[in-house]
Amino acid sequence: METFKLRFIPLGGVVGVTKNMYVYELYENDILKDILIVDCGIGFPMEKELGVDFVIPDITYLKGKADKIRAILVTHGHEDHTSALPYHYKDLGSPSILTSNLTASFIENKFKEFDIPSKVERVSYDKEYTFGGFQIKFIRVTHSIPDTTHILIKTPIGDIYHGADFKFDLTPPFGFPPDFYEITKAGHDGLLCLLSDALGSERDGLTLSEAIVGQTFEDTMRKTRGKFIMTTFSSNISRIRQCVEAAIKFNRKIIFLGRSMRENTRIAKEINYLPIPHNLLGKEEEVMQLPPNKVCLIVAGSQGQYGSALSKLANKMNKNVKIKAGDRVIISSDPIPGNENEVYALIEELTLQGADVVYSDIQDQLHASGHGSREDLKLLIRLTNPKYFIPIGGTVRHQQQYRKLTEELGYRSDSVFLLQEGETVWFTKNKATLGDTIETRNIYVDAYGIGDVGSIVLRDRKTLSSDGIVVAILPIDNLGKLVSRPKLLSRGFVFEKIGIKLFDDAIKLIEKTLKPHGSDIIDATKAKKEAIVLLEQHFFSETGRRPLIMVETIQI
Amino acid sequence: METFKLRFIPLGGVVGVTKNMYVYELYENDILKDILIVDCGIGFPMEKELGVDFVIPDITYLKGKADKIRAILVTHGHEDHTSALPYHYKDLGSPSILTSNLTASFIENKFKEFDIPSKVERVSYDKEYTFGGFQIKFIRVTHSIPDTTHILIKTPIGDIYHGADFKFDLTPPFGFPPDFYEITKAGHDGLLCLLSDALGSERDGLTLSEAIVGQTFEDTMRKTRGKFIMTTFSSNISRIRQCVEAAIKFNRKIIFLGRSMRENTRIAKEINYLPIPHNLLGKEEEVMQLPPNKVCLIVAGSQGQYGSALSKLANKMNKNVKIKAGDRVIISSDPIPGNENEVYALIEELTLQGADVVYSDIQDQLHASGHGSREDLKLLIRLTNPKYFIPIGGTVRHQQQYRKLTEELGYRSDSVFLLQEGETVWFTKNKATLGDTIETRNIYVDAYGIGDVGSIVLRDRKTLSSDGIVVAILPIDNLGKLVSRPKLLSRGFVFEKIGIKLFDDAIKLIEKTLKPHGSDIIDATKAKKEAIVLLEQHFFSETGRRPLIMVETIQI
Repeated sequence: METFKLRFIPLGGVVGVTKNMYVYELYENDILKDILIVDCGIGFPMEKELGVDFVIPDITYLKGKADKIRAILVTHGHEDHTSALPYHYKDLGSPSILTSNLTASFIENKFKEFDIPSKVERVSYDKEYTFGGFQIKFIRVTHSIPDTTHILIKTPIGDIYHGADFKFDLTPPFGFPPDFYEITKAGHDGLLCLLSDALGSERDGLTLSEAIVGQTFEDTMRKTRGKFIMTTFSSNISRIRQCVEAAIKFNRKIIFLGRSMRENTRIAKEINYLPIPHNLLGKEEEVMQLPPNKVCLIVAGSQGQYGSALSKLANKMNKNVKIKAGDRVIISSDPIPGNENEVYALIEELTLQGADVVYSDIQDQLHASGHGSREDLKLLIRLTNPKYFIPIGGTVRHQQQYRKLTEELGYRSDSVFLLQEGETVWFTKNKATLGDTIETRNIYVDAYGIGDVGSIVLRDRKTLSSDGIVVAILPIDNLGKLVSRPKLLSRGFVFEKIGIKLFDDAIKLIEKTLKPHGSDIIDATKAKKEAIVLLEQHFFSETGRRPLIMVETIQI
Repeated sequence: METFKLRFIPLGGVVGVTKNMYVYELYENDILKDILIVDCGIGFPMEKELGVDFVIPDITYLKGKADKIRAILVTHGHEDHTSALPYHYKDLGSPSILTSNLTASFIENKFKEFDIPSKVERVSYDKEYTFGGFQIKFIRVTHSIPDTTHILIKTPIGDIYHGADFKFDLTPPFGFPPDFYEITKAGHDGLLCLLSDALGSERDGLTLSEAIVGQTFEDTMRKTRGKFIMTTFSSNISRIRQCVEAAIKFNRKIIFLGRSMRENTRIAKEINYLPIPHNLLGKEEEVMQLPPNKVCLIVAGSQGQYGSALSKLANKMNKNVKIKAGDRVIISSDPIPGNENEVYALIEELTLQGADVVYSDIQDQLHASGHGSREDLKLLIRLTNPKYFIPIGGTVRHQQQYRKLTEELGYRSDSVFLLQEGETVWFTKNKATLGDTIETRNIYVDAYGIGDVGSIVLRDRKTLSSDGIVVAILPIDNLGKLVSRPKLLSRGFVFEKIGIKLFDDAIKLIEKTLKPHGSDIIDATKAKKEAIVLLEQHFFSETGRRPLIMVETIQI
């Protein structure tokens, strides 16, 4: 008789909130048979970026296993669940991608940008899909983006409920409420393990319905005599739709600002998730000509990102749209921890220009979290009755709170696995045990490429950002002799004026040390190294700083 | 082909909160085939009682239909759902009673008091019961008493979900969480109508779990150096159990005070719902001998009822238990609207005697409602997906709020029936319409009997309570002649001193009017009537009051 085993490997997402990617491996008689991947998203490094745009999951572990990968399932359209796909898709063997309608459109749009010709399969919620030894069912839930799903993964040794980002929104303003029947049915035959969004595990009660925000939009728009300007995450199609509906009611022309906002709303319009009458869809060039109370701007940049559409408005850098007294700006999202300063700076700027800025500190019902609070999380547990738990999508803090919550429901603390990235869990029939750890590293992506930003580059950037740089140029002859006075250039280190003596002394030091004795031929490489050490010591003892030091020889 | 129709008749409970009794009638080709009854409870009249203990449903409509009554189903053990059974059971033809374990024990105990030999069937939650054209399934839910159920009633024309009193308690301290699988399954095939508890429809969010109270008991008991005295509804076995568990932890002897408290806890102990170690179960006679910090009293009378165990404590009428400084009294229930004065009076009395009284105004987590709030109610709707709604167990105000809530979920307002007592609904396949109204009246029960307290008695009591009484005694001879001065007695009308002239004048008036002219034979009945009118007019014109007037003739 064959014996099956299942291994769960989080390549991201377990403790970093973002960069979600999960691997399920099915083994038959200890031979790897089938691999299933859930989500493949980008991440945002916790420490400030130093030129890094984002990180993507490290798929080194999957190298050479592409022939076992049966499918990639995507839970919803947020970037931290989808946007690493273009980078990894080919290396994963270009398997089938299955997901919901809006998510598929978002992914296909990204693929187009990357010239990847593949199509994405839009799932049917009634259907069970078979991939090797896995049987899959997508289940409708609610979140801050339409078409969010959970996934029931049936395996020969038991069923796993992959409960990615969600809340139980009983009155979603768009789309369907959670499919409670399928959720409870998933749990009825006994669930081996529940993976659950844990980000809201510190918050009491049930998360508010997205619908409350629509009423706020309408009430606020009614009272606004100038332009109505709303900013939120550009993937939050439900919220954007509620703003659009209010604008239609008050006959305001709807204008989208910012690339991500234009892109996402274009995709949503294409699949009819964002109907706007033709005559009410405007362009930013029209704003000057329109009466202010006939304008509704929906703007990207709710996190105060530098260079975003909202930041340009606040800094008077948009030539078509000027903030005037009477305008109202609604910031319909909470600052992600770490972005507070940027957001508050924006609010200041906008207020100085006469706008009435409404944000969550002064108005309660501007934003509803997309993530379930403690009662949502408990309810999912009661609906699915799992044996084991793996909290995902939070931080260590959230994992701990999630475990406490399961204890309140009567579970033993050893039924909850608090995993770090790469830590694996082995499932056998009715049993789960912690497995070995897969090594992963951060793969940084910036404007110039993927993965070429290694940890050294990052360390350099960190040094540069704090202590600056000194470049020493050593003129040498073809014998390698120092033939004239070295040159020192610096940036971001010390004021040049203050630096004159400092640099003079440094040059003298180099000359003294590197001047050829008799007919010695200087080893250029050795000379460089010596110069670096000399300069490092000199500058540190004189200034207490450690600028990045570069030494280059030039043959004359 | 036979055509079926279903009629729903609320004989109580729809707008009066209490006195729950619901009738389902199944008709085949317009001939009444089967009747099913859900609940049969007592009610508490809204206006102050005037000696009425409670009211029971009027079952006049069911007269002559006993042979069609297939069963009485009882949702839970609260008195407003069970306690009219002993009064009506025989008249209903003594049909089968089906209910949960604790509820059955409560009913059987009542039956014993009334010398009714019948047994009650304890249902199995896995089983479907057939009664004529009805198929029945009991579903576990949670409320402020263990073993609370909802009932799925399947009929040939569609399914009705009878969702009596409940909240979704995800962490019930005792018993099972709600059976979400059965609830959603009930709705999966399309539900014709949801009857839903509506009492919490004004309250936002999800109702707190009963479990929070247990933690409060423990924390408070730890800090109490004197006697720990807790009062709540005596049917709230879960709460009493949490208090008992805390007492066991701190090695305090548990003593129940008050008849209803002793009765209910005895029944709960019998079926093992309230385990107490033998050595920790005490009697009130022991209290004086025990160190105060080894005593936990669980006391009836949380509503401040006159004559209750708690009221006796407060008024120093219990010879075995005295309130002392250091004692702590926990009032673990909110006053029912109308009882506030009584409860606050108790708090004053107890505080004056040195007790530290903790009640919900000053401590949040002393009481959790047994009724679902708006999110519980919405969730039940989402889980069951009904076509029509009948809110029950609230007032007109709660019905209105419930309808608004269904509108938030996208239902049309005509899908909700706001019924008064006796108003009926006809269900045909996929359609519901308001039917004719069944006449019902209040049937009063007081210490002396059932139903003998008619509306006249009540009106008299009302008069007595506000304006008092005057009794006139007319001495007549065998010819019916007034032979001496009439006597006037009064109570609760005017001070006797003030009344001297008033009564003298009244007597003169009677004498003048009723004195026989010549040989007229006085008609005693006519004389009485005349005297009453005379006195009424006289007293009203002199005092502005309308005392109850009784005139009696005495033959001398």
